[in-house]
Amino acid sequence: MATNTALNGVNLAAVGALVGHIEAQPEAAATVWSAEVTWKGAFQSEARIRDFAPIPSDEPPALGGSDTAPNPVEQLLAALGNCLAVGYAANASTEGITINDLRITLEGNLDLRTFLGLADANAGYEAINVSVALDTDASPEQVARLHERVVGTSPVGHTLSRAVPVRIDLAS
Amino acid sequence: MATNTALNGVNLAAVGALVGHIEAQPEAAATVWSAEVTWKGAFQSEARIRDFAPIPSDEPPALGGSDTAPNPVEQLLAALGNCLAVGYAANASTEGITINDLRITLEGNLDLRTFLGLADANAGYEAINVSVALDTDASPEQVARLHERVVGTSPVGHTLSRAVPVRIDLAS
Repeated sequence: MATNTALNGVNLAAVGALVGHIEAQPEAAATVWSAEVTWKGAFQSEARIRDFAPIPSDEPPALGGSDTAPNPVEQLLAALGNCLAVGYAANASTEGITINDLRITLEGNLDLRTFLGLADANAGYEAINVSVALDTDASPEQVARLHERVVGTSPVGHTLSRAVPVRIDLAS
Repeated sequence: MATNTALNGVNLAAVGALVGHIEAQPEAAATVWSAEVTWKGAFQSEARIRDFAPIPSDEPPALGGSDTAPNPVEQLLAALGNCLAVGYAANASTEGITINDLRITLEGNLDLRTFLGLADANAGYEAINVSVALDTDASPEQVARLHERVVGTSPVGHTLSRAVPVRIDLAS
């Protein structure tokens, strides 16, 4: 892996250093990520992550919110799209592909009945559909291989497409 | 359902109107949510949702990013925490429980090897653990019932704990 490549602006040297570190110390691959959410009244809340500005959350008026921010299921789509963007940038750079432009459109279908107490079924997304518009001079074969690799290694994509054990406890 | 309740600041009248609307027209329960992500160079991107300020995304330096914003797997935890906050606010209000304070701490465990191309396994969260600190004068039995109801009806919680069909296509 090149040590000073800046294709697509990506710091491949840092990624290469992490790969080398994990090859030498496999336990370094195990990471823990965290967030802390504070309720602000009504349907407003905010999520704090490290020292960054909090991510605000609210619901549209039809759902009883005051519509000051994206709602949580929209934030979930944002996380997936942002994850795919990193995946394209990282893998295109290692494969020598220049990205001219990249836009990712995401849609999710959700039945409100379970959340509203009108059914006892799936409250979450039934399906998520993503369309990726990638402007590049790479060949269709290169783009297809890149796409397959990104989809096959996306942390948020895998989290959504698999059943993850989610444990939610009340603090004692 | 009361039509003018503001317990916990929640607009129960709006929620009740939506419930009535869906009872009369069940097809109104089927909703579609969307986001559009634009790549900004390197590992930076932003997600636009309706007319709100975009949600910025980046990676920490160790992962090759410039560390200007939370990363996508952190955003995923934020979405879950914000969703649970709405669930507590909504269900506490319908059950007559006053929330004094609510803080939700989230952690997720993720093995970096698949994302980095060092393995071909699960790139996503292996487990997500959430601790809910709820300050209320409600009885332990009321709180336990509230908690069970929130966990059982969380759209983001259900999305993560089930295998969702995620389809990611290249725009032609």
